[in-house]
Amino acid sequence: MTRVAVLGAAGYTGGELLRMLLAHPGVEVVQATSDQFAGKRLDYPHPNLRGMSSLRFVPHDALEPCDLLVSCMPQGGLINRWARVRELAGRVIDLSADFRLAPAAHERWYKKHPRPAGVPGFVYALPEWTASELPEARYVAVPGCMAHASLLGILPLVRAGLVKPELVVDAKTGSSGGGATPDRASHHPERASALRCYKPVGHRHTGEIENVVERLTGTRPSVHFSATAIPSVRGILATVHGFTTRPLDEAEPLRAIAMAYREKPFVRLIRPNTSASPFPEPGPLQGTNYCDLSVDVDPERNRIVVNVALDNLMKGAAGTAVHAMNLMLGRSETEGLGFRGLHPI
Amino acid sequence: MTRVAVLGAAGYTGGELLRMLLAHPGVEVVQATSDQFAGKRLDYPHPNLRGMSSLRFVPHDALEPCDLLVSCMPQGGLINRWARVRELAGRVIDLSADFRLAPAAHERWYKKHPRPAGVPGFVYALPEWTASELPEARYVAVPGCMAHASLLGILPLVRAGLVKPELVVDAKTGSSGGGATPDRASHHPERASALRCYKPVGHRHTGEIENVVERLTGTRPSVHFSATAIPSVRGILATVHGFTTRPLDEAEPLRAIAMAYREKPFVRLIRPNTSASPFPEPGPLQGTNYCDLSVDVDPERNRIVVNVALDNLMKGAAGTAVHAMNLMLGRSETEGLGFRGLHPI
Amino acid sequence: MTRVAVLGAAGYTGGELLRMLLAHPGVEVVQATSDQFAGKRLDYPHPNLRGMSSLRFVPHDALEPCDLLVSCMPQGGLINRWARVRELAGRVIDLSADFRLAPAAHERWYKKHPRPAGVPGFVYALPEWTASELPEARYVAVPGCMAHASLLGILPLVRAGLVKPELVVDAKTGSSGGGATPDRASHHPERASALRCYKPVGHRHTGEIENVVERLTGTRPSVHFSATAIPSVRGILATVHGFTTRPLDEAEPLRAIAMAYREKPFVRLIRPNTSASPFPEPGPLQGTNYCDLSVDVDPERNRIVVNVALDNLMKGAAGTAVHAMNLMLGRSETEGLGFRGLHPI
Amino acid sequence: MTRVAVLGAAGYTGGELLRMLLAHPGVEVVQATSDQFAGKRLDYPHPNLRGMSSLRFVPHDALEPCDLLVSCMPQGGLINRWARVRELAGRVIDLSADFRLAPAAHERWYKKHPRPAGVPGFVYALPEWTASELPEARYVAVPGCMAHASLLGILPLVRAGLVKPELVVDAKTGSSGGGATPDRASHHPERASALRCYKPVGHRHTGEIENVVERLTGTRPSVHFSATAIPSVRGILATVHGFTTRPLDEAEPLRAIAMAYREKPFVRLIRPNTSASPFPEPGPLQGTNYCDLSVDVDPERNRIVVNVALDNLMKGAAGTAVHAMNLMLGRSETEGLGFRGLHPI
Repeated sequence: MTRVAVLGAAGYTGGELLRMLLAHPGVEVVQATSDQFAGKRLDYPHPNLRGMSSLRFVPHDALEPCDLLVSCMPQGGLINRWARVRELAGRVIDLSADFRLAPAAHERWYKKHPRPAGVPGFVYALPEWTASELPEARYVAVPGCMAHASLLGILPLVRAGLVKPELVVDAKTGSSGGGATPDRASHHPERASALRCYKPVGHRHTGEIENVVERLTGTRPSVHFSATAIPSVRGILATVHGFTTRPLDEAEPLRAIAMAYREKPFVRLIRPNTSASPFPEPGPLQGTNYCDLSVDVDPERNRIVVNVALDNLMKGAAGTAVHAMNLMLGRSETEGLGFRGLHPI
Repeated sequence: MTRVAVLGAAGYTGGELLRMLLAHPGVEVVQATSDQFAGKRLDYPHPNLRGMSSLRFVPHDALEPCDLLVSCMPQGGLINRWARVRELAGRVIDLSADFRLAPAAHERWYKKHPRPAGVPGFVYALPEWTASELPEARYVAVPGCMAHASLLGILPLVRAGLVKPELVVDAKTGSSGGGATPDRASHHPERASALRCYKPVGHRHTGEIENVVERLTGTRPSVHFSATAIPSVRGILATVHGFTTRPLDEAEPLRAIAMAYREKPFVRLIRPNTSASPFPEPGPLQGTNYCDLSVDVDPERNRIVVNVALDNLMKGAAGTAVHAMNLMLGRSETEGLGFRGLHPI
Repeated sequence: MTRVAVLGAAGYTGGELLRMLLAHPGVEVVQATSDQFAGKRLDYPHPNLRGMSSLRFVPHDALEPCDLLVSCMPQGGLINRWARVRELAGRVIDLSADFRLAPAAHERWYKKHPRPAGVPGFVYALPEWTASELPEARYVAVPGCMAHASLLGILPLVRAGLVKPELVVDAKTGSSGGGATPDRASHHPERASALRCYKPVGHRHTGEIENVVERLTGTRPSVHFSATAIPSVRGILATVHGFTTRPLDEAEPLRAIAMAYREKPFVRLIRPNTSASPFPEPGPLQGTNYCDLSVDVDPERNRIVVNVALDNLMKGAAGTAVHAMNLMLGRSETEGLGFRGLHPI
Repeated sequence: MTRVAVLGAAGYTGGELLRMLLAHPGVEVVQATSDQFAGKRLDYPHPNLRGMSSLRFVPHDALEPCDLLVSCMPQGGLINRWARVRELAGRVIDLSADFRLAPAAHERWYKKHPRPAGVPGFVYALPEWTASELPEARYVAVPGCMAHASLLGILPLVRAGLVKPELVVDAKTGSSGGGATPDRASHHPERASALRCYKPVGHRHTGEIENVVERLTGTRPSVHFSATAIPSVRGILATVHGFTTRPLDEAEPLRAIAMAYREKPFVRLIRPNTSASPFPEPGPLQGTNYCDLSVDVDPERNRIVVNVALDNLMKGAAGTAVHAMNLMLGRSETEGLGFRGLHPI
């Protein structure tokens, strides 16, 4: 049994991690930290875990040695504790943006916390694309949720040379990505009917997407990214608008995507005429590690549109952390990730 | 492996059954019927099952022999096929109201389809209360979803003699209970903001609740039941308003409920000060077989209020079918029912 | 032109008041106070008022003399400023609970702020029932939103002697009643799917309902009130469960209610077979001062159920303030209250 | 008083028209047609109109002569009745796509119903841009809702030469645009959590946008349009993604848009730092004829994003019909369109 601790376990990604890890056959949750809920049982802030464990939260500073630490701390939370964390845990998975980008790119997009000297590189956990790097990895960074969705749609097409490297990504997202801390924008009366493009330009995931595409395909794209809040709690739909490099119909990009995700258990390409619900949508993916995608082509305009749906808290965060953990530990990829999702929802 | 067929498997309770049965270690789904989707794969109407099975729907009339049949047909669907079904399946679980009530009561509340001569009695599957009858049962009827929620709250208090047998039940429910067939009342623009008491008096579950309470406790209550549609898809909250038989505080009813559901894995009593979300609510129960309940007493007024939350498609339908099936087959109660629910949702 | 000031105008009832008063032909809004938004234009926190006025918020303490002051301050806000407010305004309408109850009842239900010596009585503004007291009133208290809905359903039946004075009221409410200040319970991810009976017993509106019914009908009822949060922003549905004093069908209570609200422009009784949406529901009442109600009888059980729907921010708060103001000023009852509501919504 | 008839008045745009016209000081509603609800009062399918009128629906074929006819019939409904309608009404406003496009373009995008010989040209009612054509117009076509939103964002920038004529438009829309007829995709359990790009390529409004931009600016753009269903009933947010023709910051496009809509009462440009809700969103626009827009520029990438919000049933349909009618009748532009919208909602 791998002894796992969760740092910052009272938030939304922390809750999803606990749900999966407490039922995972290969790990034991030894500690879960929360300053706010220290002393309370895990199900105190996570009502779905009612009766699942008698473990109680400990303060962040009460962290003890473990085999693997998963950090759900917000931006800067892990980097600020890095000296101590590296003493306590041989392997670390971080869900924040602290270690996703190379130092220069980090400074460009996040400005603060350029990775200090002595802090090692983290492997970027995009399991369908970087799985081979994970078994040996000591330190792993989970992608940003909207970057993750965008990358799963963009990478196969850029790699196959089917799409011009000038892409517009219009991402729609629920409220849970903003975390568990109340504020005006997420106050229910203000958020319940929200349909607002809250970050039309300058979104930080832009740099993450461009850098990763370049690293994995050799082509540096220009990604024009906008994020829109929609009236839901969970889920992302990333719509990638592009143009084909030459006249083609849907067959070729369908093939490229199908090839890229052949034998990848969590990415599903929706083919024409196979579903009464033929569009990727995050609803039935809630709570799962699945990503659904579709591709549409308008041959008259050399236009291509890829839609990618996932659950921001799962495939976009905690699910990928467990997926990466499984690969790091040499276990089956799908362990602890068996939930199939609900319909209707 | 028990060979199970699902009759009427393209609807919402059918989808939930397939989700659970396809992953259940003790059963094999041999047939799933749907006239509308005959020839299509199971995931055609159930997008969450994408990639889970290559089985295809067959028409209802193509049903072949199996060990156990679960019927998700609407009112009258099973009774009309009874002669044939009894030939094909040794054991049957029905999710409709066809066999829940004794013939006289059925005729009183449903008017049509009084159980014809030659049709046997069905065991009423309220596992926390009738589990002992299930291992031997050949024919099993799953309770109505709102009756189920109401009964789980009422039974412990009536049995313990703590509550007067005159009860008001105000049940709130999402839209999925109405099934998958579109109509005006469930058209999204009409239903999205619905908060309407659509059945203030005369609801059919009234008779079911009164009869079952009488049979299981010996006391016949008067239940004054109203049903209100609320803006959600899944979930029921049944608020039971009653009066105590004598002055008491919360301790006694808490104890009575705790005793009733001791070692019952799917019913959870929320005790004071144990949760940041201390009220039973169906949100985090979606997709699970859990039922959460709470009790509140106003000693000044001898008033008692019990709130009961569950997922109408699961604990209120398909989950109880699987729960009953496990007991009928002598398997572990919780098999196939391990999903813990999501938070936030 | 009556010069009106709004105290605490940046919250949700303040926003509704401004929307109506800025377009009202008989009044001029001279000041609107907010400490948080002092110096900002009225449309800064109220996006629907964009371009409607160039007025800016002033701090609460910058209040100047006016003809009529409407206070949208929370509990205790007006009572704490009373000495100063009485100097500044000849007439006052308060939307909080500060002045709704007689001192003894206030102390019983609110504990703090028993009305201090020297503070005058306020007229309780239930326009369909207390309109005759309003023209002369200097000081007016607007009912609590859930009390208001309950009273409109209960009063005609108690007055007509048709219902036993032991009533269960199960009220369902959206999130806006909790105000504009963010907290965990109203954080969108926690509130979006909420269906929780957050106040099963002991709700403060109980006392308000019982006292007002007694005062207006001479009969003191026992009201057993519970409040349930449902997944919407605006709107209340109060379901009143009662028992008739003698066997009767729907005709008699329909007549009693129709009589009570004859020529009352804002209360509408839904009669059988007159609507494709025959149940009172707050959706199409959003933004209006209307209250819709229905009555159902189960003669077998001497049971009667009255459903009452309204918009908590309008008929339940700001709309009644304007209605009362019109009566105080001798203007047409419906002035400024012409909006008919939306369907679908 | 202008005598107005509404053809197809039982649907959602018909309901909005009736709400406005019944309260309009310059018109009298003489007939409202519906085959389904013939003989019922207007408030039968429109609960918000309860008590507003005693008029009853008549069948479509019972239409009598009037001064002005507004048709809310679906695609083909008016064209099929054209011979008769032209006899009955001197002026006609059509809300369908029957007469929006020139015959060749209509045939390209709609395939059926190319305008038959003898059918006159209709004036395209985009009041902020074609107001001068309306006073003389006999026949008027209201734009498609998503085309309308897109055009209000695109036109000022193309006319000012600030944006390259290759544009991606990602439009998000609620369910009411699909009309009042139930179907599976709009069945509440299927639609409540929908976030699906249901028309990634080939949307018919593409041709409408391109043609109108060319006619009004002389520049023919390529518009790459996708439509996404989001979990709401009313409202459109059109996000226009473009590239500037030269390096510039926000000041210039802000000026161009401000100039275009100077003294246009229904289009509001949200300037930086003027609102706690600084993004255009359709929520507070529900029921109004307003359109809110914003512009953002990323000077590093010569990128420009315009967001445009409106209510599809109002500014996108019935509101523009009334706006156009006011101009046709020489009345004040804003008559009957005074509702300011709600917040929160």
